Amino acid sequence: MLRLDLNCDMGESFGRYVVGTDADMMNEITSANIACGFHAGDPSVMRKTVRLAVSKGIAVGAHPGLPDLAGFGRRRMDVSPEEVHDMVTYQIGALQAFVRQEGGNLRHVKAHGALYNMAAVDRTVAKAIAEAVYAVDPTLVLFGLAGSEMIHAGRRTGLQTAQEVFADRTYQDDGTLTPRSMAGSLIENPEQAVKQVLQMVKEGYVTTVSGKKVAITADTVCIHGDGTQALSFAQMLRAALHKEQVLVQTF
Amino acid sequence: MLRLDLNCDMGESFGRYVVGTDADMMNEITSANIACGFHAGDPSVMRKTVRLAVSKGIAVGAHPGLPDLAGFGRRRMDVSPEEVHDMVTYQIGALQAFVRQEGGNLRHVKAHGALYNMAAVDRTVAKAIAEAVYAVDPTLVLFGLAGSEMIHAGRRTGLQTAQEVFADRTYQDDGTLTPRSMAGSLIENPEQAVKQVLQMVKEGYVTTVSGKKVAITADTVCIHGDGTQALSFAQMLRAALHKEQVLVQTF
Amino acid sequence: MLRLDLNCDMGESFGRYVVGTDADMMNEITSANIACGFHAGDPSVMRKTVRLAVSKGIAVGAHPGLPDLAGFGRRRMDVSPEEVHDMVTYQIGALQAFVRQEGGNLRHVKAHGALYNMAAVDRTVAKAIAEAVYAVDPTLVLFGLAGSEMIHAGRRTGLQTAQEVFADRTYQDDGTLTPRSMAGSLIENPEQAVKQVLQMVKEGYVTTVSGKKVAITADTVCIHGDGTQALSFAQMLRAALHKEQVLVQTF
Amino acid sequence: MLRLDLNCDMGESFGRYVVGTDADMMNEITSANIACGFHAGDPSVMRKTVRLAVSKGIAVGAHPGLPDLAGFGRRRMDVSPEEVHDMVTYQIGALQAFVRQEGGNLRHVKAHGALYNMAAVDRTVAKAIAEAVYAVDPTLVLFGLAGSEMIHAGRRTGLQTAQEVFADRTYQDDGTLTPRSMAGSLIENPEQAVKQVLQMVKEGYVTTVSGKKVAITADTVCIHGDGTQALSFAQMLRAALHKEQVLVQTF
Repeated sequence: MLRLDLNCDMGESFGRYVVGTDADMMNEITSANIACGFHAGDPSVMRKTVRLAVSKGIAVGAHPGLPDLAGFGRRRMDVSPEEVHDMVTYQIGALQAFVRQEGGNLRHVKAHGALYNMAAVDRTVAKAIAEAVYAVDPTLVLFGLAGSEMIHAGRRTGLQTAQEVFADRTYQDDGTLTPRSMAGSLIENPEQAVKQVLQMVKEGYVTTVSGKKVAITADTVCIHGDGTQALSFAQMLRAALHKEQVLVQTF
Repeated sequence: MLRLDLNCDMGESFGRYVVGTDADMMNEITSANIACGFHAGDPSVMRKTVRLAVSKGIAVGAHPGLPDLAGFGRRRMDVSPEEVHDMVTYQIGALQAFVRQEGGNLRHVKAHGALYNMAAVDRTVAKAIAEAVYAVDPTLVLFGLAGSEMIHAGRRTGLQTAQEVFADRTYQDDGTLTPRSMAGSLIENPEQAVKQVLQMVKEGYVTTVSGKKVAITADTVCIHGDGTQALSFAQMLRAALHKEQVLVQTF
Repeated sequence: MLRLDLNCDMGESFGRYVVGTDADMMNEITSANIACGFHAGDPSVMRKTVRLAVSKGIAVGAHPGLPDLAGFGRRRMDVSPEEVHDMVTYQIGALQAFVRQEGGNLRHVKAHGALYNMAAVDRTVAKAIAEAVYAVDPTLVLFGLAGSEMIHAGRRTGLQTAQEVFADRTYQDDGTLTPRSMAGSLIENPEQAVKQVLQMVKEGYVTTVSGKKVAITADTVCIHGDGTQALSFAQMLRAALHKEQVLVQTF
Repeated sequence: MLRLDLNCDMGESFGRYVVGTDADMMNEITSANIACGFHAGDPSVMRKTVRLAVSKGIAVGAHPGLPDLAGFGRRRMDVSPEEVHDMVTYQIGALQAFVRQEGGNLRHVKAHGALYNMAAVDRTVAKAIAEAVYAVDPTLVLFGLAGSEMIHAGRRTGLQTAQEVFADRTYQDDGTLTPRSMAGSLIENPEQAVKQVLQMVKEGYVTTVSGKKVAITADTVCIHGDGTQALSFAQMLRAALHKEQVLVQTF
């Protein structure tokens, strides 16, 4: 039977600033990527989010980002491989303490924003992340853009990897995402987005912007946690996967 | 045979800002309290300091502080018990990841600066710290001011505690430290400071500013890591302890 | 004719975190207190908020706070008078640059959160703020809790002051606000809140929780900018003031 | 008579972290570029540094950087032109308030670290900085790498500019600095560094790493403020300039 994990970024509130609908969204997903205080999140938010995820039986993952709260970790920074290794180690460790206190197990790591994008194409960044994750706990699952340097680095390091695909983003012929700065980067029709996921999971390819069919492996789908449509899209996707007999579960 | 631990705050550099003489001081002490990025330290400094401590066989401890880099964690803040619990958890977890990666074991936790002082007298703060430490790892040793609420809270929680004394600070009749804001708070003569430690360790009391003898338990002595005299004082104290057949070792 | 200023804290978003309904609220108020990047706000938020206020002809004020984004400036910190003087100077200066670029004039300063509360009762903090404001620009109007140390310090320093009252908070017999931690601190009925303002403005007193009438001067009323009722309450208050022929205008 | 300004980055301490020898160095230079709290500096450090510069009659300039204390503003970040405009405005304004309080006048602006390097080659960054400076005060002098986009942008915007040269860095044939990552980027011999400055000032060219003579305009020389040799080099350079009858003075 085919299987698919649904993941969502969580715990991105900070102090009095509240974003996302974590409690509702956790009913629909199977893996929560929890911010670790660098691009978003704070110790109290991390506590609440981990507690919620553990109570709902969702797989808990660390979601480390660049140290840039003002830019929400979305601005590339010239960080050295050593800095990447250390900032990822720090953030995973911090989250791990909450997970342990709440009686859960840390299952995976997914880099956030600019760090995720850098790791998708830059081997040294990808290697630094993979090695940091492995050195913290070699049984962690490393999430990365399907087919990217992050996945390659994870495998070379000896980690189990999860290839991530996007429901609402279009793909280029080389298998990369159409940059957000380009027209047609987003799939705004939910039915179309569901259809893209089903094609990736069941048939193993994605139809690119030029109409080409490109092979892709879909282990996990990224569900966005904000926006008014997020929850209803997640429900629609789950229903479609159920109908097509794709089992929604974590690793 | 009498035993005494010598501890020192370490890893308090940040980015390009370098303070302390950690590498030298680690030759003299037995426990390193390593800053965790809130009042001082950053992921790369933590990495280097943990590596150094592990390589020298020094006991590694977490040294969590208030989130106030500009004030070096020395400014009291009105933080709730929940916030204390969560910020201590976060910082211990972050340090633990480096300790694990470097092949060491986290042995103890000592709060820093204002958080240390608050925990010495405020039961709710002390309880929040003790419970956070216990929930991360019940085998950790909790350091606190000798005879303080921190020690009481640690014991009630079920933790092993280490009563900390100061070589270069004078004591009041109630067993508390003379506040730095008062005249005569510091012992500036190194021989006098050594003598105070020996009296506390061997005879179990301290002579207060009024001349009274007050009972005190000395499990560990705080050695300051900065200042030009720090290293030579540590060496002088070790020599005196050796001569008096007090074994300098960690827990 | 009686006059009253309506002020509201503004520009409290940060990065991707959006709070408040600044654009709407600016249609109802006469003075905007704009966060300066320490407890909330960032340079881009400050730009947009200043531009909006200038375009609407609202008086622009600086709203400096403690350096504590995670606590939204609401946690007291042990800061020295020199630190207060310098952090207030810094924040006013930063805002002033945007005001100048946008073609406006900085009109007032109101401390935020814990800094506001500290300045209400602590003479050294109040003095530090007042002197920082005066040294930046002696024509600025200093806002403070009606009858508080902040107002006294402002006057002694030579500043024009604005005594601030609260519509939705109850008062103690000594003229201070009932602490939020106590029952009955909030006036939840909007009609009651409007009535309290009218009584303060027109009759010069407030009825305390014990039923006593205590003299109070109301130069400006603080309107909260968040919460779903904020906008409708502001409109209701304006209508009531209009009916009672109280002129709503800035200084 | 030939003239030359000597500038130095100052006020780069933060909290308890102290760097530089500002007080001594101010005896040798004519322009102080004072950090504004983003890459280094804090309100209290800014106060002390401005006071010192004003008391010594040194020209005071703002030294805005990227919001990256951990990286000391040396890590490039993907910031938008609007973000650059706003962060520069914010930092200049903050410093200006201290300058005004201390009875001085802000004379110039020089970007720091990665922001300086980005502005040297990226027209949109350079334009954003120049326009922010102009909008704060069109009489400010804009410092930038000699011949760079920063200088061009400043001129197009209508600002007076100061072309900055380096004593201890080698130059490429295209007039740019040899990157620090390449061998031979630094001139370690002080006599050689002095000679390079004299050649630039008196003869209007620099001898590149390939031996070519390239025209360069030297309005101001950057003197490094840290390192043990900084002060003695500044004294040596001043003596040489004096001997060659080059007047050392600000704009």
